[in-house]
Amino acid sequence: MKIVVLKFGGTSVGTIEKIKNVAKIISNYKKRRYEVIVVSSAMSGVTNELINKSNKISKNFSETEYDVIVSSGEQVACSLIAGRLIDKGFKSRSWLSWQIPIITKGPHKNSRISQINKSKIIKYLKEGGIPIIAGFQGVNNESRITTIGRGGSDASAIMIAKFFKAERCIIYTDVEGVFTTDPNKLKKANKIKVISYEEMLEMASLGAKVMQPVSIQDARLNRIDIEVKSSFIKKPGTLITKRSNIINNKIVTGISSTQNDSKVSLIGVKDKPGVAASIFKPLSKNLINVDMVVQNISANGKETDLTFTIKTEDLNKTKKIIELNRNIRFRKLLLKKDVSKISIIGVGMITTPGVTFRMFQTLANKKINIQVISTSEIKISVLIDKKDTKKALIALHKEFKLDNKE
Amino acid sequence: MKIVVLKFGGTSVGTIEKIKNVAKIISNYKKRRYEVIVVSSAMSGVTNELINKSNKISKNFSETEYDVIVSSGEQVACSLIAGRLIDKGFKSRSWLSWQIPIITKGPHKNSRISQINKSKIIKYLKEGGIPIIAGFQGVNNESRITTIGRGGSDASAIMIAKFFKAERCIIYTDVEGVFTTDPNKLKKANKIKVISYEEMLEMASLGAKVMQPVSIQDARLNRIDIEVKSSFIKKPGTLITKRSNIINNKIVTGISSTQNDSKVSLIGVKDKPGVAASIFKPLSKNLINVDMVVQNISANGKETDLTFTIKTEDLNKTKKIIELNRNIRFRKLLLKKDVSKISIIGVGMITTPGVTFRMFQTLANKKINIQVISTSEIKISVLIDKKDTKKALIALHKEFKLDNKE
Repeated sequence: MKIVVLKFGGTSVGTIEKIKNVAKIISNYKKRRYEVIVVSSAMSGVTNELINKSNKISKNFSETEYDVIVSSGEQVACSLIAGRLIDKGFKSRSWLSWQIPIITKGPHKNSRISQINKSKIIKYLKEGGIPIIAGFQGVNNESRITTIGRGGSDASAIMIAKFFKAERCIIYTDVEGVFTTDPNKLKKANKIKVISYEEMLEMASLGAKVMQPVSIQDARLNRIDIEVKSSFIKKPGTLITKRSNIINNKIVTGISSTQNDSKVSLIGVKDKPGVAASIFKPLSKNLINVDMVVQNISANGKETDLTFTIKTEDLNKTKKIIELNRNIRFRKLLLKKDVSKISIIGVGMITTPGVTFRMFQTLANKKINIQVISTSEIKISVLIDKKDTKKALIALHKEFKLDNKE
Repeated sequence: MKIVVLKFGGTSVGTIEKIKNVAKIISNYKKRRYEVIVVSSAMSGVTNELINKSNKISKNFSETEYDVIVSSGEQVACSLIAGRLIDKGFKSRSWLSWQIPIITKGPHKNSRISQINKSKIIKYLKEGGIPIIAGFQGVNNESRITTIGRGGSDASAIMIAKFFKAERCIIYTDVEGVFTTDPNKLKKANKIKVISYEEMLEMASLGAKVMQPVSIQDARLNRIDIEVKSSFIKKPGTLITKRSNIINNKIVTGISSTQNDSKVSLIGVKDKPGVAASIFKPLSKNLINVDMVVQNISANGKETDLTFTIKTEDLNKTKKIIELNRNIRFRKLLLKKDVSKISIIGVGMITTPGVTFRMFQTLANKKINIQVISTSEIKISVLIDKKDTKKALIALHKEFKLDNKE
């Protein structure tokens, strides 16, 4: 059986017209003699509406009942898709988790799919049917409805692709695919044809709009090829696959940039063990996410300067925490809003020396000052003035040959 | 176990505030040491919203998928009620048909409950839990979701009361109970404390606002005591029970009146077998509901006059059908809008002679002309001019001692 899993996100099924369009996409695959398994999210807005209702009942709404109310959204969407396909002469039906069943483990609101009973769906496929499976949910051992914490319907689609050994899992969404950089920021951004799981994970800041990291990681662990494409525009999307499937590795696959970052520098911190922990512990307790961290030994050797970045929205809170905490000793606190983190990502840089140098040289040529540097195996990030973001993006995009149409 | 089934209709759970109120009602029963089984409808408006969506997908939307989409409404309401009870410290949970299961037979959109597996719910009750069961639905032998055609959640509640041998089934709704006549038409209308199934069935025109006849019939066949009461006003409602439970039988229990009826008279119809059938067959085919039918032999003995009533909205259609149908021969067609059917209902009239006379005399005293008469064992209906409706109601209500507070 040549099985393909098609997953449609909330915006793809957001209106009746869009659901009709989705039915058309599905029927085209069916006509091309694929066995099609569809996974659908709830119509966009519906899940939030249901959550709002539960919040009005109680700020502390029961997690088991939360799963019951929220899962109804996918039930509605699946029924509408199946109804449309039936109306168009196809054999189709909605499949709810308990009808298959899709078994989950873990707590309510945050379960993981542990097992999928394939027999009924396989039988249904053999009869020529198109199953429309409710995403984002399952049933646990006690026959209670559960929902999948992170990743939602994407995670459902990937696990279904895994269990049914699908040839491919296609994630239909409201973007055309993954781009070399944000097309809203740089017109010359190109859609990436193929990208490795690892690069996709590093491009989280771009990729999050497309897929949640946890789902990419699921796909990576299970070696599921994912194609991300638009349900509105008929164009090839981006294939996310394992590195060995990628023939023409570019050195740099994509460039991401953040906004709303702020830089915090503590000057003249006593240079002794436990100092960094004493600073970051209260921040972590207050759910403040610390990103890039750099520590330099100061001139006299007894003191150190510590710099890190946080989201600008956390700046005031961070300032207070540091100033009020008696355990944190320093000479001076410098706060700087309006910084931007630029990252170049690519598996190619593992085998290509001099990428770091090329990045720094490119920025230097444009007189862009680098404030902080942090690197990983397949990513180099630098912190620069926010006002230089666009200039840096243009220069780096060109330098690493991303401007050229692939 | 002293089990009580509480059923809440769509208006009773129509808003978050109303759901909170419903949880309060439930908890009061629980505190009075009842084992409470709750059956809920969908929040008012939700079912129609879902049906609209399916209609937009296809005018001929799949009946199996219709049941999937529509049943989600009760799922949401049950989860919210259970969530509220949990928040208030009670042990509660939603129970969907497949989790119990509630087994149905018959076609989609129009199934009937054939079996309820009691074990899980009984176990849950023994653990002190309050089960909130989704009304209006079940699962069939193929594990597909079905909905109950007529009677909806009321029918679910009555079948649940039957299977669990409940002491009583309480139907919470937006009216206070069943009245001697429509309180909007007559201020002196009184709430009826106790009424027999049979009377309730005959009072359909009043009763339909309270419960569908099919559900009353279910209750009658299974000898389930039903109490109809308001979920908004804390007052006793109306008990619907078997005749032998009613001690103080009044002669007349209630008076109903219709609006929007029209009278159709065919004068000079050939008096031979099959004539009535030839008239009513095409009407029935066109889904026109014929109510009171009277046939008199005419003076010459060869012809007959046939009179019947229909809904005024069907008047034009009826006129066309009769005039265009060549099989129907008559001398003259008389159509009269603005007639009203007044019915007095009461099991007491079986054993009390002269009720018919008292009714006619009362109307005669008020100079109200009776156009058509039709009687059953526990009901006498007369057709009068619509303008006399109020006058007739007042007079009959007084004559049969319904004005007195019970």
